[in-house]
Amino acid sequence: MTTSTSPLRVLVWGENRHEQLEPKIAEIYPTGMHNTIREGIEEHSERQVSVTTATLDDPEHGLTEEVLRNTDVLVWWGHAAHAEVEDAVVERVHRHVLAGMGLVVLHSGHWSKIFQKLMGTSCTLRWRSEEDREIVWTVDPTHPIAKGIPHPFIIPQQEMYGEFFDIPAPDEIVFLSTFSGGEVFRSGCTFRRGFGKIFFFSPGDQDYPVYYHDDVRKVIANGVAWAETVRPERTDPVLLRYETEDFYNGQGYRGALAR
Amino acid sequence: MTTSTSPLRVLVWGENRHEQLEPKIAEIYPTGMHNTIREGIEEHSERQVSVTTATLDDPEHGLTEEVLRNTDVLVWWGHAAHAEVEDAVVERVHRHVLAGMGLVVLHSGHWSKIFQKLMGTSCTLRWRSEEDREIVWTVDPTHPIAKGIPHPFIIPQQEMYGEFFDIPAPDEIVFLSTFSGGEVFRSGCTFRRGFGKIFFFSPGDQDYPVYYHDDVRKVIANGVAWAETVRPERTDPVLLRYETEDFYNGQGYRGALAR
Amino acid sequence: MTTSTSPLRVLVWGENRHEQLEPKIAEIYPTGMHNTIREGIEEHSERQVSVTTATLDDPEHGLTEEVLRNTDVLVWWGHAAHAEVEDAVVERVHRHVLAGMGLVVLHSGHWSKIFQKLMGTSCTLRWRSEEDREIVWTVDPTHPIAKGIPHPFIIPQQEMYGEFFDIPAPDEIVFLSTFSGGEVFRSGCTFRRGFGKIFFFSPGDQDYPVYYHDDVRKVIANGVAWAETVRPERTDPVLLRYETEDFYNGQGYRGALAR
Amino acid sequence: MTTSTSPLRVLVWGENRHEQLEPKIAEIYPTGMHNTIREGIEEHSERQVSVTTATLDDPEHGLTEEVLRNTDVLVWWGHAAHAEVEDAVVERVHRHVLAGMGLVVLHSGHWSKIFQKLMGTSCTLRWRSEEDREIVWTVDPTHPIAKGIPHPFIIPQQEMYGEFFDIPAPDEIVFLSTFSGGEVFRSGCTFRRGFGKIFFFSPGDQDYPVYYHDDVRKVIANGVAWAETVRPERTDPVLLRYETEDFYNGQGYRGALAR
Repeated sequence: MTTSTSPLRVLVWGENRHEQLEPKIAEIYPTGMHNTIREGIEEHSERQVSVTTATLDDPEHGLTEEVLRNTDVLVWWGHAAHAEVEDAVVERVHRHVLAGMGLVVLHSGHWSKIFQKLMGTSCTLRWRSEEDREIVWTVDPTHPIAKGIPHPFIIPQQEMYGEFFDIPAPDEIVFLSTFSGGEVFRSGCTFRRGFGKIFFFSPGDQDYPVYYHDDVRKVIANGVAWAETVRPERTDPVLLRYETEDFYNGQGYRGALAR
Repeated sequence: MTTSTSPLRVLVWGENRHEQLEPKIAEIYPTGMHNTIREGIEEHSERQVSVTTATLDDPEHGLTEEVLRNTDVLVWWGHAAHAEVEDAVVERVHRHVLAGMGLVVLHSGHWSKIFQKLMGTSCTLRWRSEEDREIVWTVDPTHPIAKGIPHPFIIPQQEMYGEFFDIPAPDEIVFLSTFSGGEVFRSGCTFRRGFGKIFFFSPGDQDYPVYYHDDVRKVIANGVAWAETVRPERTDPVLLRYETEDFYNGQGYRGALAR
Repeated sequence: MTTSTSPLRVLVWGENRHEQLEPKIAEIYPTGMHNTIREGIEEHSERQVSVTTATLDDPEHGLTEEVLRNTDVLVWWGHAAHAEVEDAVVERVHRHVLAGMGLVVLHSGHWSKIFQKLMGTSCTLRWRSEEDREIVWTVDPTHPIAKGIPHPFIIPQQEMYGEFFDIPAPDEIVFLSTFSGGEVFRSGCTFRRGFGKIFFFSPGDQDYPVYYHDDVRKVIANGVAWAETVRPERTDPVLLRYETEDFYNGQGYRGALAR
Repeated sequence: MTTSTSPLRVLVWGENRHEQLEPKIAEIYPTGMHNTIREGIEEHSERQVSVTTATLDDPEHGLTEEVLRNTDVLVWWGHAAHAEVEDAVVERVHRHVLAGMGLVVLHSGHWSKIFQKLMGTSCTLRWRSEEDREIVWTVDPTHPIAKGIPHPFIIPQQEMYGEFFDIPAPDEIVFLSTFSGGEVFRSGCTFRRGFGKIFFFSPGDQDYPVYYHDDVRKVIANGVAWAETVRPERTDPVLLRYETEDFYNGQGYRGALAR
C-alpha cells in the first residue's frame, strides 16, 4: 500500500530496440527512450516519485510478479517488437491492471498486446512519418491531466497518427491532435478497466525528439499521477456468491452446475 | 450486404447443456433455451427477421466462417461450459464483431470468452440464485432498445446479479435492475467495438422461465434490431499508411523497421 | 403520434436575415438557407418526410404551440439575431424538446438561446472566416448518423470553428473536423435531454455554399432521422410521489412543506 | 489562485428554512443542516480546508461576487424555497461555475434553479418519504470520490429518490442507490460544465439524520476535493476570433454582421 507520504513507484518499460539497431535513433536517445521518458516524469511530477526502468531484453522483460507488485504505475513504450512480448507476461500485466496498477500507454504502444487486450479492439489507425506538425488541443480543460498544459501546444515534427483509431469510446477525451496534412487523432484518452486506470497518449516517436518536448513530458507526468489507484491495496475483481442481507462476505464460486 | 428489404439474419447461439443435463430445466425449456429466445425475437421484431440457431455441440459450435459471414446479429447464451468454447472460434467471432457483426450477450454470457475478450476486463459480478424479484428500470428513455418497454417492468423470480460488475464504463446504460435483496445491476448496456455494436442484457436464467417474459423478449428483439450495423459491408479495421493529401488510398504496412 | 407509415414531420427554422441584408449571401441562397436545408433533407431521407419551414420574422417566429406539437424534429439555423428570439418561444421549444421533440442544431446555432439553455454552458468557441478547408472525420463509424458518409469528406471553403468548444461532454462524438489552419472541432455531437434527442452539426455557413454539399446534406438528413423520438407520445418529465409497491401511479406533488 | 499549500476554500450554502419552521427538524439539526454538513467536510478532508456557510436569508443569499470569487467549491442544499433564490444570484453562481468554481449539489438541490440551469433539463424524479432503507453501491471503484467508501454502505432511513431522473447522461456515475421499495437512483454523478466540475450526491434529507452518517460525510468531503479546479485562475469561456497561425491571441467578437 502506498501512503500519501511514500513516493509513487513508477516503472517505465521501453522496448529498447530502435536505439540498439538504428544509429540515427541512438543519436536522439543516447541512453534509450525509456530513460528520456523517466527523466521527464522525474522533472515534472508534483509529488515525490521513484522511477525505474525495464526493457524487453531483461529476463521476463523485467516484468516479474515481484516487480509488478511493487509498481504503482507502469508506462509502456513499444513498437518494432510487440510480437516478442511473451503472452504470459502480458497476462500478468493485464491482471495487475485489473487489480489496480495504473498504466500509461505511449504512442506506438497502441498496437501492443497489452493495450489490445485491455481495449478488446484492433487498435489500428492511419499513419505517415513525414515530419508533420502536430498540434495538441485540450478538449477537457478541467481534467487533472490537462493541468498546466498550454492550449494548444505544438510539436514541430511528428509522425502522423490519424482516425479512424479503433478503440472503444474513451471514458474521457482529454486531447485531440491535428496534423499539417489535415488528419485528426484522439491523442489523449482515459479508460478504466477493473480497478485500474489507463491513460493513452499518442505524441512521441523514435524518429523525432518528442520526449524532450516540455509539454509532452508534463502531460506524461500528469498522466502518471492520475493513473495511481485510489484503492488501498491491489485486489483482483472476483465472482462471488452473497447470501441475502449479507452484503460483505462473498463466498467462493463452485461451478455452474453445483447445487 | 443486407438491404433494407431483405430480412435481418439473426443467429441465436445456445450452449444447450443445462437442458440436456437437468430435467427441471428441460421442463421449463423443452426445445432448449435458444429456441425460446428465437421465438421471442421472431414474435417481437418490427422488421422482417430470419432467425436460426446453433449450439455448442455442433461442429465448430455451429459458428463456421461461412455461417458468421451470413449472420447480421449473433445472440449469445452460455453458462456451464464457457471453457469448452474453442479459442479459434472465439477469435473468429471476435473478428466478425470488429468487422461489423452485431452481438447481443445474454445473462450468464457475461462470463463467456467472447464477452471478456471484447470488454478487456474480468466481467465478474456478485450473484445469488434465491428467487429474488428483479425490477428493470429504464434510465435512457430515448434509446431505441427501450422502445415500448414499460417503466419499470417486473420479473417475479430471478437470479440476482449485483455490482460491482467489472466491465468498462458502458457507452450507454439503458436499464438498471434492482433485486428484492437490495442489490443493483447495470442490466442493459451498449458498447461499440471496431465496426460492431454490442448489447448486453442480464435478465434471463436457466432456472426461471424468464425468456417467456413478454418484456424481456421485446427488449431482446429491440437489442437485435439496434445491433445491426449501419455499414454496407463487413470490413476489418486495418492499420494503413496514407500519403499526404491522399485521404482515401491506404497502403499496406510493411513493418516497424522497414524504411 | 407518428406511426411508422406516416411521414416524419420536420420543421426547418431559419433566421433568414443575412439573406435579406447581404446581396452576396442572397446570391448563394436565393430562396433562403432554410429552403436549401429543407431540400437537402427531402433529397436524402430514407423514409418519407414532410418538411416545412419557419423564420424569425413569422408571428411567434413561426413556432407556436400548435406548430411544435405537430413537429417531430426541429432543425435550427440562427446567427446574427439570436438575441431577437423571444424568451417565451425559447421556453416553449425547450419544453417540447424535453417532452420528446427532436432537435438538430446547425453551425452558428451553437450560440442560440435554445442550445445554450439545453447545454447549460456558454457554447463559446474560437473562429475565423478565411476560407479554410474543413475535413470532416468519422470517429463513430457504427453511428446511424454516419451511415453512408465518406471518411473523411472535404468542404473546400469554410469558416473555422475551433476548440475549446464550451459544451458538456457529448453523449456521442460522431464527427471531428480539422481546418487548414490546424484547428480541430467536435463537429458532430449527440446529446439526450429529457425525452428529446439533440444533434449538433457544425459545418454550414452563410458565406459559403456549404448547404449544397452532398455529404453535408446527407449528414443532416441522417441527423433528422436519428433525432426522432422512440416514444409514442410527447410527455413532460414530471416529479411525482409513488406509494410503496405502486410503481406506475405517480401522484401530484403538493409542495415541500406539505405533510 | 489557490496554491497547494493554502487551504481549500469551501462554502456550504443552506436554505435553512425547515430548521426554522419545523421543530422536528430543528431537533435533528439544531445548528442547521449547513453546519452539520460543514462539520462533516472538516472532519473528513484529507487536505486543509477552510469551510464557511451562508444561507438564503443572508443579503444576496450570502453569495455576493466577492464571496464567490473567494470560494473554490460551493456546496448547495435547498428544498422548500428554491423559488425564492433570486435569478441574479443564480446567474452569478452559474457564471462562476463555468469559470471554474466547483459545485457539489446535495439531495433536494436537484430541483434548485442552479442545478436545472447547469443541466438544461427538468431534473425531476420519483420520490416517497416513508423511511426506506437506502443502499449505496459503488460502480466506479477507481473514482477519487469513492476512495475509502465501503461497498456498499447502508443508510437505515431515507427518503426514496427514484428513476427516471431527468438529467443528462452523467460524465461519470460513481454511485447507484437502491431502496427497500425496489426503486433505483443514480445517486452519485459527475458533470463538467465550462471550466467547472459538478458533483451531485442524492443521500441526505431534512427528515432523517443522514448528514451525521459517516460514509455520507466522507463522500461529500471527497466530492468537495474532487470538484476543485485544476486551473490556476477563474476565467470565463469566451468566443474569440483567431488569425491563421496565431493560436494564442484571440480577438474580441464584434458582431455577426461586422465585416
